[in-house]
Amino acid sequence: MLPRLPCGGRADGVVLGPRALQRVLIGRPLPTAAATEERLTRPRAIGAFGLDALSSVAYGPDEILYVLLLAGAAGAGWDIPIALAIAALLAIVTASYRQTIYAYPQGGGSFTVARENLGTTAGLVAAAALMIDYLTTVAVSVTAGVQAVVAFVPGLDRHRVAAGLACIGLLMLVNLRGVREAGAAFVVPTYLFVGSLGLLLGVGILRVAAGGDLPPAAAAPAAVEPLGLFLILRAFAGGCTAMTGIEAIANGIPVFKAPESRNAAATLTTLTVILGALFLGTNWLGHHIGAVPTDQANVVAQIGRAVATGWLTPLFYLVQLSAAVVLVLAANTSFNGFPLLAAVMAREGYFPHQFAHRGQRLAYSNGIVVIGVLAAVLVVVFGGSTHALIPLFAVGVFCCFTLSQAGMVRHWQRTQGPGWHAKLAVNVVGAVVTGVVTVIVVVTKFAQGAWVVLVLVPLLAVAFKAIHAHYQRAQQELTLGPPPRLRRESQRILVPVNRLNRAVAETLHYALSISDEVSAVHVAVDAEEAKALDEAWQRWGVQVPLQIVPSPFREVTSKLVHVIERVQAEQPRRDLTVMLPEVIPHRWWEEPLHNQTAFALELALRYHSGIVVTTVPIRLRR
Amino acid sequence: MLPRLPCGGRADGVVLGPRALQRVLIGRPLPTAAATEERLTRPRAIGAFGLDALSSVAYGPDEILYVLLLAGAAGAGWDIPIALAIAALLAIVTASYRQTIYAYPQGGGSFTVARENLGTTAGLVAAAALMIDYLTTVAVSVTAGVQAVVAFVPGLDRHRVAAGLACIGLLMLVNLRGVREAGAAFVVPTYLFVGSLGLLLGVGILRVAAGGDLPPAAAAPAAVEPLGLFLILRAFAGGCTAMTGIEAIANGIPVFKAPESRNAAATLTTLTVILGALFLGTNWLGHHIGAVPTDQANVVAQIGRAVATGWLTPLFYLVQLSAAVVLVLAANTSFNGFPLLAAVMAREGYFPHQFAHRGQRLAYSNGIVVIGVLAAVLVVVFGGSTHALIPLFAVGVFCCFTLSQAGMVRHWQRTQGPGWHAKLAVNVVGAVVTGVVTVIVVVTKFAQGAWVVLVLVPLLAVAFKAIHAHYQRAQQELTLGPPPRLRRESQRILVPVNRLNRAVAETLHYALSISDEVSAVHVAVDAEEAKALDEAWQRWGVQVPLQIVPSPFREVTSKLVHVIERVQAEQPRRDLTVMLPEVIPHRWWEEPLHNQTAFALELALRYHSGIVVTTVPIRLRR
Repeated sequence: MLPRLPCGGRADGVVLGPRALQRVLIGRPLPTAAATEERLTRPRAIGAFGLDALSSVAYGPDEILYVLLLAGAAGAGWDIPIALAIAALLAIVTASYRQTIYAYPQGGGSFTVARENLGTTAGLVAAAALMIDYLTTVAVSVTAGVQAVVAFVPGLDRHRVAAGLACIGLLMLVNLRGVREAGAAFVVPTYLFVGSLGLLLGVGILRVAAGGDLPPAAAAPAAVEPLGLFLILRAFAGGCTAMTGIEAIANGIPVFKAPESRNAAATLTTLTVILGALFLGTNWLGHHIGAVPTDQANVVAQIGRAVATGWLTPLFYLVQLSAAVVLVLAANTSFNGFPLLAAVMAREGYFPHQFAHRGQRLAYSNGIVVIGVLAAVLVVVFGGSTHALIPLFAVGVFCCFTLSQAGMVRHWQRTQGPGWHAKLAVNVVGAVVTGVVTVIVVVTKFAQGAWVVLVLVPLLAVAFKAIHAHYQRAQQELTLGPPPRLRRESQRILVPVNRLNRAVAETLHYALSISDEVSAVHVAVDAEEAKALDEAWQRWGVQVPLQIVPSPFREVTSKLVHVIERVQAEQPRRDLTVMLPEVIPHRWWEEPLHNQTAFALELALRYHSGIVVTTVPIRLRR
Repeated sequence: MLPRLPCGGRADGVVLGPRALQRVLIGRPLPTAAATEERLTRPRAIGAFGLDALSSVAYGPDEILYVLLLAGAAGAGWDIPIALAIAALLAIVTASYRQTIYAYPQGGGSFTVARENLGTTAGLVAAAALMIDYLTTVAVSVTAGVQAVVAFVPGLDRHRVAAGLACIGLLMLVNLRGVREAGAAFVVPTYLFVGSLGLLLGVGILRVAAGGDLPPAAAAPAAVEPLGLFLILRAFAGGCTAMTGIEAIANGIPVFKAPESRNAAATLTTLTVILGALFLGTNWLGHHIGAVPTDQANVVAQIGRAVATGWLTPLFYLVQLSAAVVLVLAANTSFNGFPLLAAVMAREGYFPHQFAHRGQRLAYSNGIVVIGVLAAVLVVVFGGSTHALIPLFAVGVFCCFTLSQAGMVRHWQRTQGPGWHAKLAVNVVGAVVTGVVTVIVVVTKFAQGAWVVLVLVPLLAVAFKAIHAHYQRAQQELTLGPPPRLRRESQRILVPVNRLNRAVAETLHYALSISDEVSAVHVAVDAEEAKALDEAWQRWGVQVPLQIVPSPFREVTSKLVHVIERVQAEQPRRDLTVMLPEVIPHRWWEEPLHNQTAFALELALRYHSGIVVTTVPIRLRR
């Protein structure tokens, strides 16, 4: 009987194929023609891109008051001016980004704008800052959402990290299923949150306007720090976390329904108006009732308790519950934005190429997986604490705002279209204001964690440059020469042998079918075993010479590498093919039980020129 | 110009090779002849195998009192009887294990003894229980050590998990350097701890004997639970954590200097006497001063404060500091025991084969790495809390004690050597007593975590059986047939092409050198690009046909698999070789920038019979 060919086995016996699992979890693939149907309408885009910004109403006002109340009642007096300043900032940034959306309908946001107008380095810094911002948004939103649920279910507190990881896993799945479904799944909670919070604030403001008196939430705590400029700026910087996520639309224009720019700009304006109204309303009512945020009840919750009394009590629960849901889903903004940015970068060669490919469900699967995994790491490292994460949060996005708007200033100077003076003025104001805010955020939050971002952004930018340089070098080296000709010649083949079995027989069979220069080598860890193998080899009678190499250090891999190097050096101008059997078990979980030596040898020979490592599959049938 | 051969590059330009790093961290490899020199002497063996048991004096008495003091002063009265019961248990187990050491000089401990006498299943259960015990020992010892340091350096508390991981990493490195050095590095702290604690206890006992009065540590807290049998048994189960580690010597006999059994048995006896004396002394003095263990000061620390006053104060610090060091190093017992057990199991085919190979420094590298990584996971999952980990702790080891001693009972019944009745009696007592203790530990600690071990042990045992069955099936399938003959025939080769560059040219060059049946295939994600490629291919003029396959779903891998399956099915009795270029960058960190498609394709074709996937290396030179 001749030794069995590797083609003898059957493939359909594999237990639980990864592809079947993928279909169940992610859904059927969609053809290219369906791509335009995946586009977002305006109401859906609010759900897909607006959650991050909108959900910040649940913690933005708190971040202001946490700092201001360090100065007691005197500090609390500053909350309305700071809220107005942030609302004004929001209006300025929105005006600036509307111009960007029309000027750059292909998307790419800060990266594209900064690179085209301020040069590559500025663009890469913007991209790095934006990536970090997307990442921290996921971590902060998910942990804040879990924290909100913890207020209802205290027992969850012990499993805070696990709950955060579960949320991230769920978001990854939803997004891997595709953009449209992700948008649809999030529209209901978003509108529920906006509607219920709007109703709550409306009722509260009407009651105050009608002269009704709302019960005070708490007495202002005693001052522990003097009220100074630094404290006020710190409070302002805390409130600025409310603005993260505004830039996502500018990066995602291509996923809007046509006309893309108009729909994107209209969505941005709608979003800003809603966000500004909710943010100001929350701050004003919170100020009126003297809210003091705690881990147990944030400003929105305290407003709810004061306003939604009697038969309105269900409104309080509705606001709290939808806020919790929306906070967790807010992370979805980044799951939309990050893969799009990564794809733009990858197509330009500044990010690994595999991020440019669309996945099966038209979503950028690789980007979704990467941001999910990194965010999970952040949640674990920071123990699921929102407070520990927040200082990382606003730096990146304001850095982008500034670069993007500085880029737009250059853009108008270069293009000088109709009415460019007015447009220039808008972006000049935007650039200056956001530049100042960036400095404020960095300085006031430096020690609490902003320094991490300041270290990471340049490192990432350098990495992008290195990736680009590498792809360019590789492209140069891979320039095509004249075509190879049919030139049937003999290849030298060396087969490492551990013991004599069918795997070796099939490998030799394959080797002998393509060459008549085949030899075998055995590394003798144990002298007696080696002698027995040599005798068995002779008895077997194969026409391939077997060389026995002693290894007093019991090292197999390094010894084999040494032998292979020597054989290759005998005829350095010819390739040497090292051919190994690779036992492929019938079930995937049996894989770790085989092929450790083959794997180690492949790795060891990876950088040895003139050597081709080939494995012949020996597929087990049960 | 002909296309360049893959042998053109140079290998010595690789930046920071992993081998060089390995040499720096782990040391030079040692030859087989040096194996016997790596053996341990008795004093060194105390350091290598005794740390786990000895260090338990720092928490064993505490675990008893934590439970007893729930019943207030009435409960505290039970601590001396419980300590005496544990000391008696220790003596029984030691007597039993001494017999095992002489009966089984090759080592393997509970696994070998249970399997040879009670059958395979019992042996595998013992091995599973022992593995879990080794693992939890590492996690518990390291976290307890960190906790002891935290008592000196409160600022470390926030970095508890990171400190635990650092300790585990250090232990891995020390052990990867080899057994002898590991023993040597740990002898000094062990003797320092034993000496200083012994001196402290001696001074204390002398002062009490001389009629001197020691200041009471604290008033007994009020009772919160009634004193009942279950509470007393729970306290006893807590104290039994003091006995883990005793079995390590029986597993490690082959690493002792000759005569191995005598040296191992003598080491075990010495260890037991020291441990018993320290344990009883600590309990007695702790009872005398009315110690109430807290997170800030354990029983040993409270004895130190009461006894080592005035000019003796440095002794207090010495005991505390060496206890902290010894606790962390105690994990080393498992780093010695686990790899030895894994190697025994692997050689019998119950554990992946790669655990049977000795590493470069004669240590069982794979086992060391696995236990280190798993223990690190445990430390992270349990947040570095010793209290959360302790209920997992004693179940595994008492399960082994019982199986091992029941096995010895069968052993004497079978062999009936001189004086076997007496030996049988010793092991019957051992088996019954440890069996009862196992039940007590499981029942009293079930809800706090013992159930995890009860789930894991059977699962692991089943896994071992599955591994063994797999290796047996594989061996049967790989039975050798007659040798292959030189049979130079044509192989069908299919080369997937993405774009036309030197990588494709070299792959075709190699393919044409071994076959004249070479064809190429391109999956057209973009119709225009495909057309351009086809034209370029014709212009280039290579004598290989290129097939263009449209892919409306933009899927590359699944489409390729489909095409390959079809081609293979044309001649199902012949193999089909799929040949891919694999771009190997000049620097290892550039690897993720290449070959994603090749990797995906290799994975997808892994279980397709009749298909050989080969990659041709294209090594970039800068």
